[in-house]
Amino acid sequence: MTPLENIVSFLKDNNDFFIATHLNPEGDALGSAIALSMALESLGKNTVVYDKDPVPEFYKFLPGYNKITNSVSSLDTKELSLILLDCNTPDRAGIEKLTFKHTVVIDHHETETNFGDIKWVEPQTPATGLMIFKLLKEMGIKITQDIAVNLYAAIAVDTGTFRYSNTSSEVLKAAAELAEAGANPGFIAESIHESWSRNRFKLLCMALSTLEIIDSVAFIVVTKDMFNTTETLPSDTENFSNVPRMMKDIKVSVFFRETDEGYWKVSLRSKRDFNVARIAEQFDGGGHKNAAGCTIKADLKTAKRMLLEAIRGQ
Amino acid sequence: MTPLENIVSFLKDNNDFFIATHLNPEGDALGSAIALSMALESLGKNTVVYDKDPVPEFYKFLPGYNKITNSVSSLDTKELSLILLDCNTPDRAGIEKLTFKHTVVIDHHETETNFGDIKWVEPQTPATGLMIFKLLKEMGIKITQDIAVNLYAAIAVDTGTFRYSNTSSEVLKAAAELAEAGANPGFIAESIHESWSRNRFKLLCMALSTLEIIDSVAFIVVTKDMFNTTETLPSDTENFSNVPRMMKDIKVSVFFRETDEGYWKVSLRSKRDFNVARIAEQFDGGGHKNAAGCTIKADLKTAKRMLLEAIRGQ
Repeated sequence: MTPLENIVSFLKDNNDFFIATHLNPEGDALGSAIALSMALESLGKNTVVYDKDPVPEFYKFLPGYNKITNSVSSLDTKELSLILLDCNTPDRAGIEKLTFKHTVVIDHHETETNFGDIKWVEPQTPATGLMIFKLLKEMGIKITQDIAVNLYAAIAVDTGTFRYSNTSSEVLKAAAELAEAGANPGFIAESIHESWSRNRFKLLCMALSTLEIIDSVAFIVVTKDMFNTTETLPSDTENFSNVPRMMKDIKVSVFFRETDEGYWKVSLRSKRDFNVARIAEQFDGGGHKNAAGCTIKADLKTAKRMLLEAIRGQ
Repeated sequence: MTPLENIVSFLKDNNDFFIATHLNPEGDALGSAIALSMALESLGKNTVVYDKDPVPEFYKFLPGYNKITNSVSSLDTKELSLILLDCNTPDRAGIEKLTFKHTVVIDHHETETNFGDIKWVEPQTPATGLMIFKLLKEMGIKITQDIAVNLYAAIAVDTGTFRYSNTSSEVLKAAAELAEAGANPGFIAESIHESWSRNRFKLLCMALSTLEIIDSVAFIVVTKDMFNTTETLPSDTENFSNVPRMMKDIKVSVFFRETDEGYWKVSLRSKRDFNVARIAEQFDGGGHKNAAGCTIKADLKTAKRMLLEAIRGQ
């Protein structure tokens, strides 16, 4: 049996699911989780949808976003089957202390872990939302308008609304089918790209004022002070790392987000063939070829130098 | 016969075409014109592709862009059949003094003119490129990779790369087919959206650092000093006025560009129903409901106050 067939038979044979996705959830995680929950419930199954972090304000256009809970007691989960979405280890979802009856992983990130009784991992697929789309079609589940909106949004977020190099003919075909099923492309794009809060926009302006370009590497920074001044959250920085990609001669865009004193969460974005996952791995991080991340403990100047050396060395 | 069938039989019956599109051509005009020329030449026909203005530098990724000429003598055209693309009167293409054997119009703009022996005008279609795509399929012409890139780019430009409200299931299906025929979505999107010069990007960062929001009006400013510092030109500010539209609760975005001492070129952008043409008219400017402009002579503070009063008064 293929991994997909395995998952299909598992979902058919079980009734009570705990769908969890990663910390700081973005559109692909949220849309995939909500859509899968709706699909399983349409078959009369029971689902809990869990994310440890709250749904960011600007994703509340997703129908059914309020299905997502961030409170759970470990007692509740023992008889449930975990479906871990858009990530592949329990700690990425902050559920490492919970126990489950079964564990399933559906993800499109590279992984070397063995977690999961059943694993369906497709690193070459642009979005977990596209995997859920395939799964639902395989199971013959009707794609309602609400499911379509969630899956369209999931795919749109992870392909930069069809602008990234992972945008294939298959992605566009799925988007066309989801639009036919009731997803409104213009509304979803406006919700994703033109629904920023004022404070989030001010934070971006501040981040861009830190722009530094060395060789063909662009650096921008958000400090804890900036979060305080603009009353924003780490989730407000989603996509900041992509903004410097607008420049034609930028090879790598590096976004620093201060977490604790002296700790930086680093998001790396590249164009075309430059593999930033390789860079992130040197700092115990990981990701995809064009989008990766890691954490560095150093002062900002040193952190920039370390990354620049790693990039030059590749 | 439908207009499309009329065009098909006309193209089959004739051999020598003069394909022209509008002044200041953008992606839909250029891609449509080049693709149609390639398609007709694949049938052994002869084409001249004309635009009075040169192909902008950032559209030179279109295969066959150098088929487009901007020199022509009136003597040459008398035996040719004009195909006017993405506009509907000869003056929009700067060819009002030329004479042709026949005249054909293929366009998706509203029109009240009667120009054209044969007219195929579909204002509800998002892009002329989509009409050419339908035409080629109707004629059974093979969509080569070069044709696919041109048509994909044409459709992408006029739908904001699938973000505007005109993005339909049909648009996405066509895009999927063109991607299958060899158009590379990531490369095309990068060519359209991620080919800014560093200096243009730095200018944007500077402009955003001037952000001021009063009520639901966002103001950003570019001064002559900023142009000097970044070695940029007024044309580099194209689209700056749209950037603050990213915020969900902004009614009007106002972009000030300093021309001469004390003179400001003002670009106004709005969302949905707020009519900025009415505001611009109060300052002897004009435009459309969601995009208008005017010139104001005043110090910046006064100019902001004047605009704010006009906006509050509407």
